[in-house]
Amino acid sequence: MTSPPDRLTLVLGGARSGKSRQGEALVRAAGPAPWTYVATAEAFDAEMAERIARHREDRGAGWVTIEAPHDLVGALRTADAAGRPVLVDCLTLWLTNRMLADADLAAEGDALVAALAGLAVPVVAVSNEVGLGIVPDNALARAFRDAQGRLNQAVAARADRVLFMAAGLALRMK
Amino acid sequence: MTSPPDRLTLVLGGARSGKSRQGEALVRAAGPAPWTYVATAEAFDAEMAERIARHREDRGAGWVTIEAPHDLVGALRTADAAGRPVLVDCLTLWLTNRMLADADLAAEGDALVAALAGLAVPVVAVSNEVGLGIVPDNALARAFRDAQGRLNQAVAARADRVLFMAAGLALRMK
Amino acid sequence: MTSPPDRLTLVLGGARSGKSRQGEALVRAAGPAPWTYVATAEAFDAEMAERIARHREDRGAGWVTIEAPHDLVGALRTADAAGRPVLVDCLTLWLTNRMLADADLAAEGDALVAALAGLAVPVVAVSNEVGLGIVPDNALARAFRDAQGRLNQAVAARADRVLFMAAGLALRMK
Repeated sequence: MTSPPDRLTLVLGGARSGKSRQGEALVRAAGPAPWTYVATAEAFDAEMAERIARHREDRGAGWVTIEAPHDLVGALRTADAAGRPVLVDCLTLWLTNRMLADADLAAEGDALVAALAGLAVPVVAVSNEVGLGIVPDNALARAFRDAQGRLNQAVAARADRVLFMAAGLALRMK
Repeated sequence: MTSPPDRLTLVLGGARSGKSRQGEALVRAAGPAPWTYVATAEAFDAEMAERIARHREDRGAGWVTIEAPHDLVGALRTADAAGRPVLVDCLTLWLTNRMLADADLAAEGDALVAALAGLAVPVVAVSNEVGLGIVPDNALARAFRDAQGRLNQAVAARADRVLFMAAGLALRMK
Repeated sequence: MTSPPDRLTLVLGGARSGKSRQGEALVRAAGPAPWTYVATAEAFDAEMAERIARHREDRGAGWVTIEAPHDLVGALRTADAAGRPVLVDCLTLWLTNRMLADADLAAEGDALVAALAGLAVPVVAVSNEVGLGIVPDNALARAFRDAQGRLNQAVAARADRVLFMAAGLALRMK
């Protein structure tokens, strides 16, 4: 008898905590290549473009990328049809993109969580914890912090496994 | 033979990490209704007023509220006399209020910790961890960050149980 | 048969989380006095000078201090020759000093990690986790956050033991 697989995993952590690398390792361990990489980053500026290129290089071969800076639910549907383990990197950039597009974050968050929890393939979602600093000065940052915290809680509630990352190390929270 | 009850609990975490909900659950588990809710928030502006109203609604029935934006030690004395499990939500807003009132934070922190540790009823104190971001630009924020860290350490040292929250999940640290 | 000693320890945490005190306790436990204290702080202003003086006072007797705001690798070599357990407090101030000196942080980080991992004496390095807040507004702070995260990951990868601190309590991550 084997224990049931971890279908939905949340990898939570700070900036440069090793979240993406951990997420990639978990997806590789979930099945043979090719794996699906759902990329939510949008290259607004040179700093972000460089970060995207560096991440793609770190990732290496074996990944089929779906770009989904906005329609993440649609991308998950496509990824599910492909029948391969999926990495979503990351929820924080998607949430940023949707906030800048003036979306209804609560409604879209609910739809996203339902989609993540309903996939037939294993999925690992990477997300930032952003609430452990001093209260930000500007209202938009405070609203983002609240929205990110609510989304992380909702995904974690449906996840089979939640990891908290620091300094490249994983701490299992669920 | 049963293990001794957890008399003083600290629930530590970031913004929107599920601290209040966790604190409420622990107080509910500590005894039958009504429970005492010691509220430290002050409704300076519309954003804070909305947040207070939402928290009160989330909490539901069964709670007797004591407002204590400043005199938290006095409120704890009243709560102790009521003989019911107490939730203090939260130390961070109390510390903010006292800093803005130019109080002696070290002395008041010591008095608060002594009061929390001396209650006859079970008490759960919610507090923010605020030191895990980049050093803040302004000196007041840095001073607050130091004061909050010192207070959290002092409460944790006297607590029977300390939980660290992220994404609605609790990690036991003590 | 005894388990091998913890030669390199990383104590990670936020501001005022009890990192220094924890680091001191670990070094004291690693052998008899005197212990070597490698101090990376530079007293730019009154606030920092006061912080340094307070730390020195908290530390008490039994410590031989080596000041190393910039040449940390050299200080580690001196400390190793002394043959005593070493506390490095902290990597974050060293990284700040090197960034302000326009150093090549990636190359210097690699050299530092090699030096830390190559010591014959037990060493405890204290470092800040700074990536768990909202993305900072200014580019220098973002660059620092990335550099600190990369350095923490590199040290943690070579460490025998990694502790995450909050409210004065230690959580073992490795």
